[in-house]
Amino acid sequence: MLGMTTRRTQVGIVGAGPSGLLLSHLLARQGIDSIVVENRGRDYVEERVRAGVLEQGTIDTLAEAGLGERMMAEGLFHDGIEIRFDGQAHRIDFPSLTGGKRIMVYGQNEVVKDLIDARLEAGGAIVFDVDDTAIEGIDGESPTIRYGKDGAEHAIACDYIAGCDGFHGICRPSISEAALTGYDRVYPFAWLGVLADSRPPSREVAYCHSERGFALLSLRSPTVSRLYIQVAPDEDIANWPDQRFWDELQRRTAVEGAAPIETGPILHKGITPMRSFVAEPMRNGRLFLAGDAAHIVPPTGAKGMNLAVADIRFLTEALAAFYRTGDTAGLDGYSARALRRVWKAQRFSWWMTTMLHLSPDDSPFDRRRQRAELDYVTGSEAAMRTIAENYVGLPFETGLTP
Amino acid sequence: MLGMTTRRTQVGIVGAGPSGLLLSHLLARQGIDSIVVENRGRDYVEERVRAGVLEQGTIDTLAEAGLGERMMAEGLFHDGIEIRFDGQAHRIDFPSLTGGKRIMVYGQNEVVKDLIDARLEAGGAIVFDVDDTAIEGIDGESPTIRYGKDGAEHAIACDYIAGCDGFHGICRPSISEAALTGYDRVYPFAWLGVLADSRPPSREVAYCHSERGFALLSLRSPTVSRLYIQVAPDEDIANWPDQRFWDELQRRTAVEGAAPIETGPILHKGITPMRSFVAEPMRNGRLFLAGDAAHIVPPTGAKGMNLAVADIRFLTEALAAFYRTGDTAGLDGYSARALRRVWKAQRFSWWMTTMLHLSPDDSPFDRRRQRAELDYVTGSEAAMRTIAENYVGLPFETGLTP
Repeated sequence: MLGMTTRRTQVGIVGAGPSGLLLSHLLARQGIDSIVVENRGRDYVEERVRAGVLEQGTIDTLAEAGLGERMMAEGLFHDGIEIRFDGQAHRIDFPSLTGGKRIMVYGQNEVVKDLIDARLEAGGAIVFDVDDTAIEGIDGESPTIRYGKDGAEHAIACDYIAGCDGFHGICRPSISEAALTGYDRVYPFAWLGVLADSRPPSREVAYCHSERGFALLSLRSPTVSRLYIQVAPDEDIANWPDQRFWDELQRRTAVEGAAPIETGPILHKGITPMRSFVAEPMRNGRLFLAGDAAHIVPPTGAKGMNLAVADIRFLTEALAAFYRTGDTAGLDGYSARALRRVWKAQRFSWWMTTMLHLSPDDSPFDRRRQRAELDYVTGSEAAMRTIAENYVGLPFETGLTP
Repeated sequence: MLGMTTRRTQVGIVGAGPSGLLLSHLLARQGIDSIVVENRGRDYVEERVRAGVLEQGTIDTLAEAGLGERMMAEGLFHDGIEIRFDGQAHRIDFPSLTGGKRIMVYGQNEVVKDLIDARLEAGGAIVFDVDDTAIEGIDGESPTIRYGKDGAEHAIACDYIAGCDGFHGICRPSISEAALTGYDRVYPFAWLGVLADSRPPSREVAYCHSERGFALLSLRSPTVSRLYIQVAPDEDIANWPDQRFWDELQRRTAVEGAAPIETGPILHKGITPMRSFVAEPMRNGRLFLAGDAAHIVPPTGAKGMNLAVADIRFLTEALAAFYRTGDTAGLDGYSARALRRVWKAQRFSWWMTTMLHLSPDDSPFDRRRQRAELDYVTGSEAAMRTIAENYVGLPFETGLTP
């Protein structure tokens, strides 16, 4: 060890994903100092393949915060999604069902790049490639983030710590088990996801229910496809040579009048487990959890990053009010305010997931009911509107009955 | 045995519940002859306590068929329902959400009385108190209903037989197992239902979700209440003396500002199991199944009798077309046409049931999700509209994607 350095900041942030970086950016705009520590390297966080659908409120939040330039130039606005089953495609049109709201296809890693560029340009502190990160003293007045870097030990003394380090991060487990309740559901299936240098097979994101399992046709750009098929949760990726993937995708997504899917080089292939999780409350002492550190959703509803953005809006408002006036009411209300919206997104993600996938737990009755549900939601304007309003994102304030 | 008599009719109908009686009535209006046989007595079928909510389309069907006089005078039009949870009541307004549709509170046994009166007045044949009913020859040209009455054997030779004899009737089991698929779900709870001579505690039907279990406040008239609480499926009714029932009902339904429930003499107390069931197809040879003989729903969505009325509309149309033109296309399409609507009502009934009850199978995640769902559906106009349009009844033709 090369000794020990200690720095001070107002808000110490663990994790340089969308949550941590956006928090740092929004706080800086309020004149609040922060330091972000991240155990991965910059290249890694800028390149990891994650979500790619931004809600209207996420687009607005990023644009209003001065982060919209490249996003507005390169992001693809979409006005709807498709739901396919029984060989037919059904469209859910967002603007007509939601009073003009839309979504944007723009990769999470692109958002991360924009955020890192903005932070570094503004002189913000992001420490990449740290190790042995730990947090201490969250019950006291000045909590500390400790980490190692290049063989030296470092400490950051903070007013508050934001745990933005994802589901597998160190912040949530730093809270005593008695102080946190975890609500968990693991689904009996997973997604095999592929990023391919091929023309997207569907102009809009297409959710495909079939007797062979779920499939999703998505995209990153007009020439890069993002494609998924439902597989067993313990599936071995070695069982899926490229041609088998393309063949299975074609079978699950075929609808009347659609051209065969164009194949292309596969750039990335991975298995995504499907899980719903919420930790309550999202605060312990001077530690606030945000984004995946507090909750994860199955990807079917495209809600993961969008929930993180909503959390960060709430947390920024609360911290800004505290530093402006000394009033902690906003900080005290953060968890309840964020959880209200989190649970509605959890409900939507669970519903989309169970409606569209085949589950080994389903009885023949459940299968028939599922098909009736797909028939109902693609035929009833009211039901289509429930999909649309959730997909473009519920309002940031969406109250639970007190 | 006193010998054997044989009669002939065009359509032999097994069961004098709402399905069988309405079919006989509607067929007579088309000049088609029928005989109804029923193993219970007239008093029994006129007094048995069953469903009590008529969809807009059911009201219209009965009124158009000349059965509306007493119904329109004594039935209570309702413009909405309440959903209660977390100590708050939320109203779902039907006319504003469905373009003017409503429901009517009018007991199933009142509909049965009106139908029996109308049939007997028109000289229709209803044979009550039969025994050993059996059907034969449904694969041939002239199927037969056999039954015993007053010690004599009787046979009715028919062109077609309508199995309207309910879930426990003899018609469905007369079909070979290989020719029928049953889709079944038994819920891990039941309803303890009470008919009470007391002022209804809620002006409109109120669905109450509570941590103690589901409860339903309903009514039969301005002075007669129909009240339910969720209990275990194997609950012993002896465990529920009247006072315990009233106390538990009060606890589960309390909301801000509501007066305590007024108690009164309990006229009837019973346990209703909760089950979803669909038999496919609804036809075998010259036997057509309709109503509960083909499908049952948990009572949460108030769909049982209404589904029977829709089946009978479809079957009457098909039989009328056959007798008018000899064309069997309508008869051949009956099952698919009826099942389309049946499955959507099954979906709705399942959804209302699982959203509102506590299930021993639910995980803590499911409970939280359920609460978020109640919060969502009582706060989103689109979601309220999905409840309203299903509750007042989907259109008779509600197509599945072919």
